[in-house]
Amino acid sequence: MSLPSSRIFALTLALSVPLAARAQSSTPIAERYRASADRLIAAALKDSAAYNRLAELTDRFGNRLSGTPNLEATIDWVIDEMKKDGLANVHGEPVMVPHWVRGEESATLVSPRSRTLVMLGLGGSTGTPANGITAEAIVVGSFDELTAKAAQAGGKIVVFDVPFPQTGDPFENYGNVVRYRGGGASEAAKVGAVAALVRSVASFSIQSPHTGGLRYDTTVARIPAAALSVEDAMMLHRMQNRGEKVVITLKMGARTLPDAPSRNVVAEIVGSELPNEVVVLGGHIDSWDVGAGAMDDGGGVVAAWEAVRLMKALGLKPRRTVRVVAWTNEENGGRGGAGYRDAHLAQLDGHVLAIESDNGPFKPLGFSFVGSDEAYELVSRVAVLLERIGAGKIIRGGGEADIAPLMARGIAGMGLATDPSRYFWYHHTNGDTVDKLDPHDIALCVAAMAVMTYVVADMPDRIPHGAPQGRGR
Amino acid sequence: MSLPSSRIFALTLALSVPLAARAQSSTPIAERYRASADRLIAAALKDSAAYNRLAELTDRFGNRLSGTPNLEATIDWVIDEMKKDGLANVHGEPVMVPHWVRGEESATLVSPRSRTLVMLGLGGSTGTPANGITAEAIVVGSFDELTAKAAQAGGKIVVFDVPFPQTGDPFENYGNVVRYRGGGASEAAKVGAVAALVRSVASFSIQSPHTGGLRYDTTVARIPAAALSVEDAMMLHRMQNRGEKVVITLKMGARTLPDAPSRNVVAEIVGSELPNEVVVLGGHIDSWDVGAGAMDDGGGVVAAWEAVRLMKALGLKPRRTVRVVAWTNEENGGRGGAGYRDAHLAQLDGHVLAIESDNGPFKPLGFSFVGSDEAYELVSRVAVLLERIGAGKIIRGGGEADIAPLMARGIAGMGLATDPSRYFWYHHTNGDTVDKLDPHDIALCVAAMAVMTYVVADMPDRIPHGAPQGRGR
Repeated sequence: MSLPSSRIFALTLALSVPLAARAQSSTPIAERYRASADRLIAAALKDSAAYNRLAELTDRFGNRLSGTPNLEATIDWVIDEMKKDGLANVHGEPVMVPHWVRGEESATLVSPRSRTLVMLGLGGSTGTPANGITAEAIVVGSFDELTAKAAQAGGKIVVFDVPFPQTGDPFENYGNVVRYRGGGASEAAKVGAVAALVRSVASFSIQSPHTGGLRYDTTVARIPAAALSVEDAMMLHRMQNRGEKVVITLKMGARTLPDAPSRNVVAEIVGSELPNEVVVLGGHIDSWDVGAGAMDDGGGVVAAWEAVRLMKALGLKPRRTVRVVAWTNEENGGRGGAGYRDAHLAQLDGHVLAIESDNGPFKPLGFSFVGSDEAYELVSRVAVLLERIGAGKIIRGGGEADIAPLMARGIAGMGLATDPSRYFWYHHTNGDTVDKLDPHDIALCVAAMAVMTYVVADMPDRIPHGAPQGRGR
Repeated sequence: MSLPSSRIFALTLALSVPLAARAQSSTPIAERYRASADRLIAAALKDSAAYNRLAELTDRFGNRLSGTPNLEATIDWVIDEMKKDGLANVHGEPVMVPHWVRGEESATLVSPRSRTLVMLGLGGSTGTPANGITAEAIVVGSFDELTAKAAQAGGKIVVFDVPFPQTGDPFENYGNVVRYRGGGASEAAKVGAVAALVRSVASFSIQSPHTGGLRYDTTVARIPAAALSVEDAMMLHRMQNRGEKVVITLKMGARTLPDAPSRNVVAEIVGSELPNEVVVLGGHIDSWDVGAGAMDDGGGVVAAWEAVRLMKALGLKPRRTVRVVAWTNEENGGRGGAGYRDAHLAQLDGHVLAIESDNGPFKPLGFSFVGSDEAYELVSRVAVLLERIGAGKIIRGGGEADIAPLMARGIAGMGLATDPSRYFWYHHTNGDTVDKLDPHDIALCVAAMAVMTYVVADMPDRIPHGAPQGRGR
C-alpha cells in the first residue's frame, strides 16, 4: 500500500447491507452458485498452498522495489509459475517505472550526546551532501505547531513527532497521520528547514522504522527526509522538552535514476461465452526495499493468483474472462495501474469489475466497494456466499490504488477488506515477512477472492459501469 | 533479566493464599498500616515521577553493559541523584565485573542467495577469525533433532529454530526455550559444528533479535554463537525444508577483556529503632548493550529507588533500615549480587527481607516469595494493603537473580510480579525502551514496592530466616 490519496478511508463496517433486506433478492444467485462457491472454499482451505507460495516468493526474492533486477526476476518467476499452473495468455505488459535508489544512509544524534538513530529514508527523497547535513533539530507535534514556531525553524532539521492513534480504525488513523510523511518535507522547507525527520507512521514499533513515499511541493526546495523509529522520535521530543539542545547529522545517498522498464503480469481464464467481458483481480508485485513485501503486497498477488489457479484446477469455466494481474510500481509511482488502463483502453467497456487485495492477507471480513447502486446490489448477492467464512461484508467506499484508474472510468471496484489491527505494525518495515501471516487466514482470502470473482464472471447479470470515481492516475 | 538458572519459573498465580484464610490474622497489620500505605500509594500515583526518572536515565545513558564507561557514568548519576533526594549513606560498593565486548558482527546468507541476516551475537561468545566463518548450515528444531542428525553436523553452522510457545506462562516458556541460547553453542560443538545460531528467545518479533548470555561447557571447544531474528531463523528452516543448500558467513569481533571495576549503588533510610535490621530492595543497573535497558532493568532500579524516595518525602521513618540497591552486572556475571553478599557478610543475620524488581515495570500483580511458612504468613498480611491496586497476590516460588545469594543464606526473598504478557517481546533487544511502558503502571510498581518495604521494615514482627534456597552464586 502506498500513498493514501488514492484511497478513501471511510471503510465503515457498519455500512454493510442488512441481511434481511438482502436475503430476498439474493436467493437466486446464492442457490445457483452455492455448490461452486463451496467447492472453491473447500479447495482453498484444504492446504497451505497460498501461504507456501507466498513464503517461496518472498524467500526467493525478498523485497522488490521498482527499478531493481529483483523485481524483474520475481516477475519472470511469476510468469513461469503461472504458465505451469495452466493459465491462459500469461505475459508481461511493459511499463516504465520510477527508479529511486536509497543508497547509504544514517542519522546520528550529536547533541546532547552521541547516539545512532534508527531511521529509513523516505522513498523519493533527495540525498544529502556526502558529508551529511548537521543541524540543530526542532521537534513539533503537528503542522500547526510548525507554523507557530516557523521563526525558529530556519536552518534546522524539523522532526515531526506525530503519534498514531491507538483507538479507532487503523486505516482512517493512517490517513490522518501519513500526511506528515507525504508532505512533511515540503512543509518544513517552506519555513526554511534543511531536512525533515518524520516519526514512523506506525501503530506499534520495536525500533522498526517505516519507509514510504513523500511528495515534494514543486514551489519549494526539495530537502532530504527520512522516517525515524517511533522510539527515537519520542526520545528527541523528550530531550527538547527537558531543554536540551538536539543536534543531528543526517546522511542520505538517495537519488532518482532514469525510469526503468518493468511489467505488469497478466494471466487469464478465457470466458466461455463472453470472453470480451472481464473481471480483473490482483495485487501489486512491487514493494518497498525493506522486509520481504509479504503483506504489502506479495500476499495480495498470491491471493488473487491462487483464486484463479483453483478455478482452473476445479475445472470451473466462467462465462466471462477472469484476468489476474500483478501490477508493478504501486508503491512509488502507480505506473502499473495506469499502464494497465492504457494498455487495455479498447477493452475497458468490457471490464465489469476490478478487485484488488492490498491490505494484507489477514483474516478477510469482506470487500470495500465503489460503484453504482445496481452494481452494489449485485455484488451483495454474491457476498452472501461468503458469510459462512465470515467474509460476507460489503462496505461502500474504499477502493485500491492499482484499480483507481479503472474506477475513474466508471468500472466497479472492490478491495479485499481484512482484519486491520496489525497491518500498520509491519507495513513498509523490515518486519513485513510471511511469518506474521496465518496460513488459514490467507486461504480464507483466496476463497473470498475466488468466490466473488467466479460468480461475478459467470452470473447472468452483468455488473454495470457507474459514474467515474476519483482521479485515477 | 539474565540466565534462568537463578530463577524458579513455577510462578503459579493459583498458589496465592485464599483471602478468607488470610483475612483473620491480617487484620491487625492491615489496620495499623492502612493509612501509611494509602499515603504511599497516593504519592506514587499522583504524578509520572517514576516514568520521567526512568526516561531521563535511559535517554541520558542508553544501555549500560558491564565494563563500559556508560554504566559507570550512570552509576555516578544515580549516586548524585540519590544524594539530592536526601537518602542516607549513599555510596558505591566496588565490584569487579566481566568485560565482554561485542565488536563488529554480521551474518550473511551466501546460498541459496545473498542476503544480510538480522543477528546479535550472544553475550560471552568468542569471536570468529577476521574473515569470518563460512559454512553450510543445518537447521534443527531441538537438541533431540541435533542428536539424531549428529553425523551431518560436523563442520557446519548449527541453526536452532526453536519456537517460543504462544500459550501458557511466558516466564515458564522462556525457561524452556532459553536453554538453546545458553547451551546451544556447546551442544553444537559436541557434534563438531563450527558455530551456532539460535532463533531469538522471543514471544514476538519485528526483525528484532534478542541477545543474552551463553554458557560454554568447559569440556568442548568454544565456538562463536549469535541470535538470529525469529524471522530469519524461520526463513532458513523453510529453505532447508525445500531442499535448498543453506550457506552462511558469520563474522563476530566479540572478545572478553580483563575484569573491570564497577559498583553496586547503595542508599538508605536508617531504621529509627532497629538500624541493624535491614529490608533491602532494588533492581540491576547494568543492561545488555542494546536498546536502553528500560524494562531490563532500569525500571526495576527506579521502582525501588522511587519507593524509598517517597518514604523519605512523606517523612515515614521505619523502625528497621530500608536499603535500596542498584546491583551491577546482573546480565553477564551476577557479580553485583554476589558482591553485595560478600560486602555485607557481617550484617546478613540482620537482613529480614530482600525484594527485587526485574520483570519489567508493567502492571504489578503482587510478589513471588521464597522463604519459610511463617515469613510467608507475615508478608501475606502486608499484601492485603495492596489488594486495592490489584497487586496483593503473594505467589510461592520464584526469586530474582541479584537476591539469590541472599536467599541462599536463608533470607526471605521476593520478586515484584508484573503482567508478563509483553516482557519477551522487548527483552534484550533494541526495543527495550521507556516508551513501551505506562506511567501509571510504573507508579503502581512504586506503590507496591513502597508499601511492602515500609510495612515489613516497621511492623512489630520480624520476618524470620528460613532454610537456604538455591545455589546463590
